[in-house]
Amino acid sequence: MANPVLVEVTRGGIVESFHRGGFALVDGAGEMIDHRGDILRPVFPRSAIKVFQGIPLIETGAADAYGFGDRELALACASHSGEDGHARLAAEMLAKAGLDGTVLECGCHWPFDASVSRELARRGERPTALHNNCSGKHAGFLCTAVHQGEETRGYVGLGHPVQQRAKAVIEDLTGFDLNSDVCGTDGCSIPTFAAPLKSFAHGFAKLVSGHGIAAERAAAGRRLIDACMAHPWEMSGTGRACEALMQAAPGQVFAKTGAEGVFCGALPELGLGFALKIDDGATRASEVLVAAIIAAALRSHDADLATRFDALSKTTLRNWEKTEVGAVRATLD
Amino acid sequence: MANPVLVEVTRGGIVESFHRGGFALVDGAGEMIDHRGDILRPVFPRSAIKVFQGIPLIETGAADAYGFGDRELALACASHSGEDGHARLAAEMLAKAGLDGTVLECGCHWPFDASVSRELARRGERPTALHNNCSGKHAGFLCTAVHQGEETRGYVGLGHPVQQRAKAVIEDLTGFDLNSDVCGTDGCSIPTFAAPLKSFAHGFAKLVSGHGIAAERAAAGRRLIDACMAHPWEMSGTGRACEALMQAAPGQVFAKTGAEGVFCGALPELGLGFALKIDDGATRASEVLVAAIIAAALRSHDADLATRFDALSKTTLRNWEKTEVGAVRATLD
Repeated sequence: MANPVLVEVTRGGIVESFHRGGFALVDGAGEMIDHRGDILRPVFPRSAIKVFQGIPLIETGAADAYGFGDRELALACASHSGEDGHARLAAEMLAKAGLDGTVLECGCHWPFDASVSRELARRGERPTALHNNCSGKHAGFLCTAVHQGEETRGYVGLGHPVQQRAKAVIEDLTGFDLNSDVCGTDGCSIPTFAAPLKSFAHGFAKLVSGHGIAAERAAAGRRLIDACMAHPWEMSGTGRACEALMQAAPGQVFAKTGAEGVFCGALPELGLGFALKIDDGATRASEVLVAAIIAAALRSHDADLATRFDALSKTTLRNWEKTEVGAVRATLD
Repeated sequence: MANPVLVEVTRGGIVESFHRGGFALVDGAGEMIDHRGDILRPVFPRSAIKVFQGIPLIETGAADAYGFGDRELALACASHSGEDGHARLAAEMLAKAGLDGTVLECGCHWPFDASVSRELARRGERPTALHNNCSGKHAGFLCTAVHQGEETRGYVGLGHPVQQRAKAVIEDLTGFDLNSDVCGTDGCSIPTFAAPLKSFAHGFAKLVSGHGIAAERAAAGRRLIDACMAHPWEMSGTGRACEALMQAAPGQVFAKTGAEGVFCGALPELGLGFALKIDDGATRASEVLVAAIIAAALRSHDADLATRFDALSKTTLRNWEKTEVGAVRATLD
């Protein structure tokens, strides 16, 4: 059966396009608080679980050994916009472990943000691996490897201890068997593992509730989540959806985007985790849907706060002359 | 009932995302040759019917009065990439009618093609309305207005004779009542009218078969279609899908993209027209689906040619290190 329509794109009086998908909102015990669509089909979480992948940076002691503060930890969980400050901070992290950008194996790409890209071009520059949106996560991987005395080369491979540690954390948090059938290669060359939305949502709920996992792991996860909520720009970039969502409720909402229409996150005070995927992979849809899910979850706890997320669950479409021509809006009800 | 899945996006061994939609392949008599999904729901054709909108440029005699050749006619039907040559040709068209780029009411935007955009930025320039992907169509509108002795200002408004002529052509070709319920505003500020996919497909079939329309109109449409097939770069841009599709079968395939996952076109030798829409508006999906529809239509007539379009019905996905990680592929069968 097809997933429900969760986002509509209107033009004039007509629904021009629409997006189907599913989501799960779960508590630490794994109890389903809200959901739509198929939440059991394994889907790739992509960058939405960078917090899970960052936990070994804390647990091995590498973050403390290199004196990483919240800004560095937020960048280690980031899909950043490749702004100058992001690239510089990634370089500073690597320098702490005696490395530079040449050891990154994430590849180069022009920053996703078109204006950042054009500014780089205007200065006659080209992007390096430090501008890759995943360079902070990779800096975290590399620093952990150096701290553990491991070979850095090939750290993106599934067999490398860096990826094995990340995989073990994801398996622990999701409770899902990450066998080779559900393994793909991510844009930044590391393995990505597909699991049900329900399992990813439960993983985030475990981290913020402490339910069913070791206290040390919950503390590590919470430290990363708190760092991201305190430094949303480091975790995303100027004007990005993750930044706007976390600025709307400082310290109360953690939300992280992933490629192909994924969003994961947590409401720490409520001990809840969530995960969503748009069937067709559209980011414009995931960005309004996540706001609608958060608004619905907060409604009975804090109606004012919920209203702020209602506003983020719809974006106005304008043409090149700035005339309003339609909207992208979540249709949860 | 949900439309069928027509395009899959894979990663590793998993279908990561998928796209639903519908299409119609119709002959000049309106006979359905092939179709999937809902082809009766009104959808906005957006830029995919620029040929329809260009017909008054021919029928009024403006194109001949200004000495427009096939390159200018192709640009009048284009969603171009904003390359230097496109902007220059649009300016040349306007100059023929004593105008310049300042009269364009389509708005400015950075060229959709990121590398074209960055090259403009690298030179310290900013886009003008001449770089707008629709500037050729608007140049055609403006030249027609001048030729007819009409006020150019406000030519994008529904009440202006330019838009009334375009609307009358679309109504004639689709046979659909274009009332205010189905009217929206396009990205370039002109009205866009929603109609069923079947009707748009039939309109293109009428143009290439001559069925059911005035001979003069069929000739005008065929002249524009031939111009586009002869000059695919002018109608699209370097490396774009429309260019690749028309270069794969010179003179045998006309295909034109539209925003929000639309494609329309014709197989002139077979007297067929087609129209497709991806429900979620994804261009990556419309681009492989159109190739699959063309391949299927050509199979029994020219198997070798069909094979060329089979190849275009799948694109390989690579990560930033150029490793193959998946594919976008049409799943017509």
